[in-house]
Amino acid sequence: MTTIHDLQTPALLVEQSALARNLATMSSALPGSRLRPHVKAHKCTALARLQAEAGHRTFTCATIREVEGMAAAGLGDDLLLANEVLDMSRLGRVVEAGARVTAAVDSAETIRAASAGGVREVIIDVNVGLPRCGCAPDDAGRLADDARARGLEVRGVMGYEGHLMLVADVDERRKQTEECMTKLVAAGGAVGGDIVSAGGTGTYAVNTWANEIQAGSYALMDTAYGAVADLPFEQALFVLGTVISRTPPAEGIPGWAVVDIGLKSLGMDHGNPTVPDGVVWFCSDEHVTWQPDDFDAVQLGDRLRVLPAHVDPTIALHERMWLVDGDDVVEELPVDLRGW
Amino acid sequence: MTTIHDLQTPALLVEQSALARNLATMSSALPGSRLRPHVKAHKCTALARLQAEAGHRTFTCATIREVEGMAAAGLGDDLLLANEVLDMSRLGRVVEAGARVTAAVDSAETIRAASAGGVREVIIDVNVGLPRCGCAPDDAGRLADDARARGLEVRGVMGYEGHLMLVADVDERRKQTEECMTKLVAAGGAVGGDIVSAGGTGTYAVNTWANEIQAGSYALMDTAYGAVADLPFEQALFVLGTVISRTPPAEGIPGWAVVDIGLKSLGMDHGNPTVPDGVVWFCSDEHVTWQPDDFDAVQLGDRLRVLPAHVDPTIALHERMWLVDGDDVVEELPVDLRGW
Repeated sequence: MTTIHDLQTPALLVEQSALARNLATMSSALPGSRLRPHVKAHKCTALARLQAEAGHRTFTCATIREVEGMAAAGLGDDLLLANEVLDMSRLGRVVEAGARVTAAVDSAETIRAASAGGVREVIIDVNVGLPRCGCAPDDAGRLADDARARGLEVRGVMGYEGHLMLVADVDERRKQTEECMTKLVAAGGAVGGDIVSAGGTGTYAVNTWANEIQAGSYALMDTAYGAVADLPFEQALFVLGTVISRTPPAEGIPGWAVVDIGLKSLGMDHGNPTVPDGVVWFCSDEHVTWQPDDFDAVQLGDRLRVLPAHVDPTIALHERMWLVDGDDVVEELPVDLRGW
Repeated sequence: MTTIHDLQTPALLVEQSALARNLATMSSALPGSRLRPHVKAHKCTALARLQAEAGHRTFTCATIREVEGMAAAGLGDDLLLANEVLDMSRLGRVVEAGARVTAAVDSAETIRAASAGGVREVIIDVNVGLPRCGCAPDDAGRLADDARARGLEVRGVMGYEGHLMLVADVDERRKQTEECMTKLVAAGGAVGGDIVSAGGTGTYAVNTWANEIQAGSYALMDTAYGAVADLPFEQALFVLGTVISRTPPAEGIPGWAVVDIGLKSLGMDHGNPTVPDGVVWFCSDEHVTWQPDDFDAVQLGDRLRVLPAHVDPTIALHERMWLVDGDDVVEELPVDLRGW
């Protein structure tokens, strides 16, 4: 049996039991097509397959490569590219090969790109309050007409209330979600079609207006979502490192240690990672320098599980994850949907 | 001729003329073995080959994979792993295959690892003020004796004054570098050997105590180093994106645009990237939302060159870079030293 002590560090670990509980909790709350799992968080078809086994056959993607990879893995029943692209020729080839692909559009140009690229189904992306992609709610109906005039099937609307995911107070998060979704539902009325797609891990329980939720982080989690008290999901993702250097306390400076995890194995946009029983001082390319609560308890060669602050960009830095049961390595999970 | 308009975005661009000027400027200041280029910044053997053609045959690495890749590319004349590792068996195999590998050690355990792993040459890593790896200066001589007692060749000392790289005032940077290097030179006297290795792009000109400088960022640069006024290097690295969405000004809110570059194509530990002629609002996994100075000048489909804040973790997110001459693509540069 391979154990985590045999792995080259840094290495991404996925704790099997925590993953299983997260998947079960979400699938129980949002069964089948009520959840459209977002693969951008894990970028891993092996993990998507577990989500499919939990009853979800519709998926959300952020990149063309994710769409291609999911289709090639036999998970192409209903793929939504929830992002604008202006050259859809690669998506058209995925459709031609037999997968179902729906593309988000928010402009005349993206509608033309769908038509020209061979994508037959679109969804109107509506700005519900996060200043990013999406048309103004009042423009949604007109864009749907444009799309139909070009022979495209319009399946409905999507709108991402991403700015609400980490609102700490659940009542405030629900209230603001309602404001966003009121706009989306109205746009959906003007657009037609069956789908009202929105949400994420932070709003999966309070967004009762969308008929499908695009959550992804719930499966593996991170410390940013972990700080949202009402979410029932557990940290399942860890970066495993090896303690490579330690400096004892001296001249009033506390002792510190260094683990071989750094900016190249951690997404840093949400800030520093969390170490167990210690405080992070700073991160370098290949190092986290931290102060252990009990310096003498930390030895060179120790393996340490560090908790990343943001799951998505952390995983994008790794070629593979390791599914583990405690210290035992169960399976390699290739991060096979990276790149563009 | 392929142009940047043919590239799938996001894509990393390296402007050939700026790279050539950066390489020439550095090689003129620190010719031959006075520079030991650090490959961790670019992780690219094709770029290391350009540095070798500029006269440098000694290189610095941060990971075992970098050492292996450099040796396999025929650039293994003198590789320094400037980082502690506790299992050197892979390094020993590189030595056996004919490359010269020197490993940094800062403890009895890392010395034992060198001996056990088949690495015959080491350098004593000394803490000169950055709280990370490195022994106390007073311990360096004793560690060198330990290493020699185990049959290892001790080539000298290294110490990284990394906390000084971005000190804005050059006189202050020189003064603090002198304090750090005084410790390193004293440790070097106790250790013996020929090498006093230190420095980086920020201190390459003011560190006159080390006899070799481990600079890496100078070749491609980033906005953090670009803000250091006395450095003569130019931004040569850009992330190319496509404008995929734009929202016109309305109700007192200025217009904004979205480019398909995000947390998965940008190192974020030094903060947001810089866009030309505009202000970045925020970054998401696959998006930068920004406010152009002239909204009407930005059109869907436009290609935009974004300047990353930190070169090393940005490159680690990409499979390849594209060497360009303006809009013309000259050559693909695989980022072939990623991973561990």
